[in-house]
Amino acid sequence: MRTSQYLLSTQKETPADAEVISHQLMLRSGMIRKVASGLYNYLPTGLRVLNKVANIVREEMNRAGAIEILMPVVQPADLWEESGRWEEYGPELLRIKDRHHRDFVLGPTHEEVVTALVRNEVSSYKQLPLNVYQIQTKFRDEVRPRFGIMRGREFTMKDAYSFHLSQECLQTTYDKMYAAYCRIFERIGLDFRPVIADTGSIGGSASHEFHVLADSGEDDIAFSNASDYAANVEMAEALAITQPAEAEAELTKVATPEQRTISDVSTFLNIPVEKTVKTLIVYGVTDEDGNTPLVALVLRGDHTLNEIKAEKHPLVGTPFAMADETVVEAQLGCNFGSIGPVGLAIPVIADRSAATIPNFVCGANENDVHLTGVNWSRDVSEFTEFDLRNVEAGDKSPDGQGTLEIKRGIEVGHIFQLGDKYSKAMNCGVLSETGKHETLTMGCYGIGVSRIMAATIEQNHDKYGIKWPDAIAPFKVAIIPMNMHKSHRIKEVAEQLYDDLLAQGVEVLFDDRKERPGVMFNDMELVGVPHAIVIGERNLDNNEVEYKNRRTGEKSMLSIDNLVDFLTSL
Amino acid sequence: MRTSQYLLSTQKETPADAEVISHQLMLRSGMIRKVASGLYNYLPTGLRVLNKVANIVREEMNRAGAIEILMPVVQPADLWEESGRWEEYGPELLRIKDRHHRDFVLGPTHEEVVTALVRNEVSSYKQLPLNVYQIQTKFRDEVRPRFGIMRGREFTMKDAYSFHLSQECLQTTYDKMYAAYCRIFERIGLDFRPVIADTGSIGGSASHEFHVLADSGEDDIAFSNASDYAANVEMAEALAITQPAEAEAELTKVATPEQRTISDVSTFLNIPVEKTVKTLIVYGVTDEDGNTPLVALVLRGDHTLNEIKAEKHPLVGTPFAMADETVVEAQLGCNFGSIGPVGLAIPVIADRSAATIPNFVCGANENDVHLTGVNWSRDVSEFTEFDLRNVEAGDKSPDGQGTLEIKRGIEVGHIFQLGDKYSKAMNCGVLSETGKHETLTMGCYGIGVSRIMAATIEQNHDKYGIKWPDAIAPFKVAIIPMNMHKSHRIKEVAEQLYDDLLAQGVEVLFDDRKERPGVMFNDMELVGVPHAIVIGERNLDNNEVEYKNRRTGEKSMLSIDNLVDFLTSL
Repeated sequence: MRTSQYLLSTQKETPADAEVISHQLMLRSGMIRKVASGLYNYLPTGLRVLNKVANIVREEMNRAGAIEILMPVVQPADLWEESGRWEEYGPELLRIKDRHHRDFVLGPTHEEVVTALVRNEVSSYKQLPLNVYQIQTKFRDEVRPRFGIMRGREFTMKDAYSFHLSQECLQTTYDKMYAAYCRIFERIGLDFRPVIADTGSIGGSASHEFHVLADSGEDDIAFSNASDYAANVEMAEALAITQPAEAEAELTKVATPEQRTISDVSTFLNIPVEKTVKTLIVYGVTDEDGNTPLVALVLRGDHTLNEIKAEKHPLVGTPFAMADETVVEAQLGCNFGSIGPVGLAIPVIADRSAATIPNFVCGANENDVHLTGVNWSRDVSEFTEFDLRNVEAGDKSPDGQGTLEIKRGIEVGHIFQLGDKYSKAMNCGVLSETGKHETLTMGCYGIGVSRIMAATIEQNHDKYGIKWPDAIAPFKVAIIPMNMHKSHRIKEVAEQLYDDLLAQGVEVLFDDRKERPGVMFNDMELVGVPHAIVIGERNLDNNEVEYKNRRTGEKSMLSIDNLVDFLTSL
Repeated sequence: MRTSQYLLSTQKETPADAEVISHQLMLRSGMIRKVASGLYNYLPTGLRVLNKVANIVREEMNRAGAIEILMPVVQPADLWEESGRWEEYGPELLRIKDRHHRDFVLGPTHEEVVTALVRNEVSSYKQLPLNVYQIQTKFRDEVRPRFGIMRGREFTMKDAYSFHLSQECLQTTYDKMYAAYCRIFERIGLDFRPVIADTGSIGGSASHEFHVLADSGEDDIAFSNASDYAANVEMAEALAITQPAEAEAELTKVATPEQRTISDVSTFLNIPVEKTVKTLIVYGVTDEDGNTPLVALVLRGDHTLNEIKAEKHPLVGTPFAMADETVVEAQLGCNFGSIGPVGLAIPVIADRSAATIPNFVCGANENDVHLTGVNWSRDVSEFTEFDLRNVEAGDKSPDGQGTLEIKRGIEVGHIFQLGDKYSKAMNCGVLSETGKHETLTMGCYGIGVSRIMAATIEQNHDKYGIKWPDAIAPFKVAIIPMNMHKSHRIKEVAEQLYDDLLAQGVEVLFDDRKERPGVMFNDMELVGVPHAIVIGERNLDNNEVEYKNRRTGEKSMLSIDNLVDFLTSL
């Protein structure tokens, strides 16, 4: 492609409303342009990258035995009523009416459509397992679209759905998709982690997210420094941090006037924060008479509560909610800062690490009073242990290998064992080998194709611009002739190289504009073409050109004679 | 692809609600499935064809110098307000509101978005001409979706838009796109005609439609049997059919009681219908005082009025409307059947062929009375000649070469010189070479990618199913082993052939199901795989297999040794 006949559309200025680097660089390098909040045009350079990502995804899906189909963007509401999500799904589901006032949605996902399709097309166990996918435009009406295409409203997604008669069969396909996802992100050249994820409200049994590690990520990922273990912090199991045994001290009441926080109490009593516990009061499960009991959660003073874990305890109410202080004061007789597990008349759940502290400090259930020398077995009549806290960097990895690190990640993929949530609601089953009608078990597998572009930039850039991995670069080679319009010799070498590379099928961007060399260098670095050839008068005297590698910064002189061989072999 | 691991989904029954053959065959062969009115899933086989069509279109667009971009499906209403189409466009434009109650549309076309894009990205004449395209999902809320994907609501379209500083430059790109369109339809293997089209309400100066000839087409196409001339019947110029001169007869009043139609009068008076004229009264252009005059249109008795042509006469009102009979009777004093051009007090416009008839018959402007022996120059005080009629098969071609045939066509492409309709309304211009701000001139170029699939089937099928041209066939070769599950020898040959063809990059569908040979033959004919290899015991004794060409019906025996060479060379 010649830049003179292309829509390069680079910009010098950093756009004011772009918060993250990928958004800034996609605008500056002419990849995307905003049409409206969360809606973007892909300019030619951006679309080239998007298509490369899509093709890698397609190849790996096909290799894994998934079959490509295409479902409509606009979906009839009746399918969403069947699954129950017409009511359940929030305002991110854009509900629309056609000219005949019939209800439709713009598809944010396609479980309903694909389940209805398989219900009609598949009638026998012989046709199973089936794994179908599409690469398609999706719409999610985000309340606050941001970060460019990272969290846009219209986006390109690969979504696959698999159908099975047994959990074993689902697991086999799930493992294949897990492996395919790893290959996809490896081929693109990303530093990523498959992490154990929460199955959340969608239901189902097992789930992994695939995260690209980058400081701008919206999720915290905990992973072992010595094994493959990785989990969303929401999900990472926190092992007990055991403390050395001590001789039991005497249980003592101490006045702690106006010391309300753990930090206050620890300083006031001159006791390490690891020897304190905090007691949080939450709402339990409402009983048949409509009464909602209180439940106490006890954590080590320096640990933080993981609400998702807490919600999984059978005594804790759903959705998780902290109790109001007025309710607590009325029932327990003291304020938040003075509660403790000793003599508490409500169920007590202790985090594993809190439950190992000998001679700890806690509130005395009396305002401005604490207890010291507290020991669980001696002083707390009844409690259960549970994993309640968020893991922290330096914790032991729950697989027993190494310690945990925590980094930020951008979720680019999600695989999910759905179970029978949709197939049951929508009556999707087949005749089994024994002639019985059986409801199918499903998996679903998503990849944010457009989001991968943004995540790749978050992980691959410098102050000059994008450093595309070769696999998804918009062009492989940039030809930068210096002052070509004044030098016949430079023009000749540049044109010959361009023709030769095109003949070899190399994707090349030939900067034939009448621009100063500095402008051309800056544009090619900004756009992130991995390999640049600079053609200048002086080097031509030695029959040489300069080669520059965008990712490594490496520069070298190359003989013109071997140039095409070198560039095609990269 | 092995059928056992594929979603073939063929059906024996012809679906009751599918009116046209392409719709029936796409359902029966497992190409598409209905999701809701005008909304379809593409099953794997259909998507393979769709992608092949899209790739041919993409290659030819790139070759013609167009640059691929991607614009959003959901478009903000404010752009449509700028162009004026928010008001103008009918209910086919699906207007929607997002969660913040802002107005959007589902894009049926992208003139607004692309004009806004170019307005922002292009500032100098140096960046012109620019021709950008996308292949994308569109939505048009048809009042009555029908014929499957032929007239669906959601569909895949290639739309290109070009921008220029001069009409000459636009014409050059227009000609390139015309040529690219011809190459696309030739590569697919379609019998098509580029036809001169009406520019309609979209405005602009020149336009061609590309029609695939098929009996089920919704348009009538007139084309020369001796030249490239082709036009939509709406647009085809009708030359005068001259009649031999005769001595002027006497103008005579004859009573024609209750003879109201041309056919009645012709029979009653025993005069050939070609010697009669009919006079149609239409509304003229409303004047400043709000008065709408009447205008008389005169055609030869056997010709039919072309309203689009009539509307182009400066005296005829827009939109075209026939006058009410009560208005006519009140003003002209007689009913519709007795009107004629002689002594008529309103403007008279005669079709070119009507204006050459000597001694013709017409109404006498008196109920139940006609005139015979009428001659234009002698008896009609004032009239103008104009091309008013529809061409008919056998008419001379307006380019002077050959005669016209009329066939039905399916519109699959449309190219259009838009002029400055959008660029002016949306203020899209650049600085010209002389430093002046100049509004751009635009062209737009559409191809119905999904519709091409349906049109191809309308033109390429027989009673057994689809006969795909090789260029867009879902698979090139079908392997049909007879009773493979009982014969080790057959299985071995089939598996080897499958492996060898895959290794050569041939797209092959290997029917490895445990089905009877008849079922497999029928499915492969229905799906329309162009080349089939049937492997049976008896032929293997001679080291041979049977080859069948789906399009020609040709069958032959092939040696196993040359099989792969033969199939890859096709």
